[in-house]
Amino acid sequence: MTTPSSPILDVHTNATRRHFLAKALAVGGSGFLLANMKAWGMDLASTRDAPPALAGSGKGKTVVILGAGLAGMTAAYEMSKLGYTCKVIEARPFAGGRCQTARAGSVLEELGGEKQVCGFERGQYINFGPWRIPFNHRSTLHYTSSFGVPLELFNNDNDAAYVYNDNAAGALRGRRLRQFEVKADMRGYVDELLAKSLQSGAIDSQVNGADKQLLIDYLVNEGYLSKKDLRYRGTEGRGFKVNPGAGMAPGPGVPSDPLGFSDLLQSKLGHIYHSVHEFTQQSTMLQPVGGMDAIARAFEKRVGRMIRYNTEVTSLRNRSDGVEVGVKDLKTGAVSVVKGDFCLCTLPLSVLRQVDTDFSPTFKAALQGAAYAPVCKIGLQMGRRFWEEDDGIYGGHVFTDTKGINLISLPSSNWQGKRGTLLGFYSFGGDAAELSGLTLKERAEYAVAAGEKIFPGQYRKNFETAFSVAWHRVKYNLGGWAEWSEEAREKAYPVLVAGEQRTLLAGEHMSYLGGWQAGAIESAWQQMALIHQRLSSQGAAA
Amino acid sequence: MTTPSSPILDVHTNATRRHFLAKALAVGGSGFLLANMKAWGMDLASTRDAPPALAGSGKGKTVVILGAGLAGMTAAYEMSKLGYTCKVIEARPFAGGRCQTARAGSVLEELGGEKQVCGFERGQYINFGPWRIPFNHRSTLHYTSSFGVPLELFNNDNDAAYVYNDNAAGALRGRRLRQFEVKADMRGYVDELLAKSLQSGAIDSQVNGADKQLLIDYLVNEGYLSKKDLRYRGTEGRGFKVNPGAGMAPGPGVPSDPLGFSDLLQSKLGHIYHSVHEFTQQSTMLQPVGGMDAIARAFEKRVGRMIRYNTEVTSLRNRSDGVEVGVKDLKTGAVSVVKGDFCLCTLPLSVLRQVDTDFSPTFKAALQGAAYAPVCKIGLQMGRRFWEEDDGIYGGHVFTDTKGINLISLPSSNWQGKRGTLLGFYSFGGDAAELSGLTLKERAEYAVAAGEKIFPGQYRKNFETAFSVAWHRVKYNLGGWAEWSEEAREKAYPVLVAGEQRTLLAGEHMSYLGGWQAGAIESAWQQMALIHQRLSSQGAAA
Repeated sequence: MTTPSSPILDVHTNATRRHFLAKALAVGGSGFLLANMKAWGMDLASTRDAPPALAGSGKGKTVVILGAGLAGMTAAYEMSKLGYTCKVIEARPFAGGRCQTARAGSVLEELGGEKQVCGFERGQYINFGPWRIPFNHRSTLHYTSSFGVPLELFNNDNDAAYVYNDNAAGALRGRRLRQFEVKADMRGYVDELLAKSLQSGAIDSQVNGADKQLLIDYLVNEGYLSKKDLRYRGTEGRGFKVNPGAGMAPGPGVPSDPLGFSDLLQSKLGHIYHSVHEFTQQSTMLQPVGGMDAIARAFEKRVGRMIRYNTEVTSLRNRSDGVEVGVKDLKTGAVSVVKGDFCLCTLPLSVLRQVDTDFSPTFKAALQGAAYAPVCKIGLQMGRRFWEEDDGIYGGHVFTDTKGINLISLPSSNWQGKRGTLLGFYSFGGDAAELSGLTLKERAEYAVAAGEKIFPGQYRKNFETAFSVAWHRVKYNLGGWAEWSEEAREKAYPVLVAGEQRTLLAGEHMSYLGGWQAGAIESAWQQMALIHQRLSSQGAAA
Repeated sequence: MTTPSSPILDVHTNATRRHFLAKALAVGGSGFLLANMKAWGMDLASTRDAPPALAGSGKGKTVVILGAGLAGMTAAYEMSKLGYTCKVIEARPFAGGRCQTARAGSVLEELGGEKQVCGFERGQYINFGPWRIPFNHRSTLHYTSSFGVPLELFNNDNDAAYVYNDNAAGALRGRRLRQFEVKADMRGYVDELLAKSLQSGAIDSQVNGADKQLLIDYLVNEGYLSKKDLRYRGTEGRGFKVNPGAGMAPGPGVPSDPLGFSDLLQSKLGHIYHSVHEFTQQSTMLQPVGGMDAIARAFEKRVGRMIRYNTEVTSLRNRSDGVEVGVKDLKTGAVSVVKGDFCLCTLPLSVLRQVDTDFSPTFKAALQGAAYAPVCKIGLQMGRRFWEEDDGIYGGHVFTDTKGINLISLPSSNWQGKRGTLLGFYSFGGDAAELSGLTLKERAEYAVAAGEKIFPGQYRKNFETAFSVAWHRVKYNLGGWAEWSEEAREKAYPVLVAGEQRTLLAGEHMSYLGGWQAGAIESAWQQMALIHQRLSSQGAAA
């Protein structure tokens, strides 16, 4: 593998930045949206806080739901409550889609790959699909609340975790730093520079007189500048050389020295920081206790009886009076046709593209619009939680620019326990494609070697067993999530959202919360409301 | 109560800033400290990570320990392992000192106050003493680990929580804002101002040419500035008008508009932010599952048999061959003398000052050196977790400048549960002194009225029952913690740390981690090592 030319890959923001830019292309403003939502009988809150409150009944009508992931199960759960007969077709022997957790005995076989059986100890697990729930994903939290899925905090921000950049320019290359060192010093120096510039009068034209002193006060406070000379000389929050403690020694402790401003700038390490996280990365984050698949299991408990497992979708036909879905029983090989009044297809577009359908050429072309992200993850079970015991790092992410690693994420559960399972890499795009070509053993070795540089003497020594996934090589997923170019969002996406004849699509790919469970759930809420509207008006007309 | 003249009281930093300043007065640098610590046979790590590894035995020797708080119990636990006979004198019928948790049935009677019996529902509690453990308090975490006290994350940083400032100047007075709005906008505008100043060449003299573009790049990235014109126009992380979601509407959502820069500056709301937290406020923070007193109980389980409960210390005499502590049994009124080879006194100075001792005039004068902080807290049990359900605030602190309130802290446990108990105020100094003059009912009413302004329609409606404490009115504490002026740190503190004759002092007051459990523990570690050294050399001489 070659050295990437970019500084640390900002894994927090790449995906959502694209999304933010895409907004510029969206038609209309809030007035437009409000009008549309009113037209659907949905108010603002209901689109994200709770399922739409639908009047009427679905009694006597059948909806064929393709895929028992979170979108499919959401629709089955809500529509069956309305009286609909829901037939859910699922190729796998279990429900949940990408909402999976690997623990002892979990099996995964990638396309063309080895059969992997998870060898973790009891109690250890890795969420190799979705792994965190931001506070603003009200829809996901609606179901954890409704279903009584116990939650705990997920530490998505830990400034005490390290940043280690092997390819940085200048003096900080290959230096392991606490993130709070970088943060304190960057802001300190920046605040010093601006405060002095203000005081010198050099930029008086840019600030009105009344605000000038208020701004200097703000900068002094924020950056821990000396009130006297506006200089930044370090601050205790960047860590001590000797921590404060008892008595006279260590007593107040010994302050640490700030890094050099020029060194920091050259290293570009400051790029891991933003004023605030982007929307989907905002804290507080939560996770189900014991593994994300608790959400899948909670849904499955309620809709499992509607699911035909081990059943692959082979064809889809829209008829004037309903839909016909050709399916194949993967255990017996038997083929049959499942009929219904309407179809809600939640298959990833990457999978749906391979199904024999009667969609129009326009719709079929639109199906090609989204790229599917190559994504690799690996869980590494460690025999000792050295990151807590030796380094005082309790959860959060260690950032690195080692190709394909991006971050090492420490577990947010079982604090001070004996073992711990960390996320050894979270890899995207070309790097993920490369990584996925390695054998399972090679992937683990690659991850361990990268971690050993950051936790020398401990990472390799404590490594016990790994579980890895390359989502683009997982049958029935063929990618981590849909990625929309600006052009595709503008052209293909609306075509797909509108659906065709008696089929509507749902899933994270039919949302602007791509790759998130909330996207799947909210998309299901929206499309099931439309199906209900369509079938209700049809009923009224009949 | 009158309106305070200050902006939002920065409760994060007032105490620790004083401590940081005090460092300037401390003698010597790290060389000095290292030498001292080596002289004690302690290396750097051991002063905070684990108890000192002491050689030899305490067999046949008795240490009288005054107070069964965390300092006293730490010493009893570690010294008894060395073979010492430890006699712990505790005035209360239970151990733990300030490490207390109120739950159903807990009783508290302040000096001159009403008898308070906690009426919380089962499972509800408030940590009205210590309530959080920062990751860098290795000593506290040493014992939670050793004793197997289950921990969970404590959310000390939640940018989604509100800030509400009733006394702000300008347009933002009395406006409830999410903290991330303030944070994003302040940094955005500040970054824009500096980026434009750099680009204009106005401050070329301050930045070397090679760094200039790197700095602009950093500012653009951090502040979400437009690359094109370096302007800040808001960012998604400051919240949306309509959140992004499924389909075409809400689809990408509707961005929100930034607050005005001048309004923000005038309001001084930006003062809630620093580049990084100060040392003791740094995340990650943890808490014992079910209440902080789990730590006290874990110690008590191991040293309870050494504790004489309900026994008040009335006098302390240092003899040439040992100590004599006069005590009174609070149940029978019987007085007696407890003898030992050495005394470790962990009573708060505010309490020790009232004991009849034979300390020298110099030592007695030093005992007067620390002020004891008036501190009030109140737990409010709410029938519904409206802050989670309605506002999406999962833990963290709502900041307000309402006199004596400072913050409303939301619980970091039992997520999405039925009830929740929040901290309704955390009050210091003069405000706390005023608040403590109210009746229990009036305190609750004051807290509820303040919260109702921030969560209108919900706070009062859901309030069920309260439990409050004014630590300066609690017998055997007489204050929240020791507060050292710079002068007292320089003059009185070293005298007290050195102890006198056969008595040494320990507790948070004998540390630079004032008010924290880690201060008590590390102080005990340090002083017990000295006692061991003194008694060992004495033994060798005999």
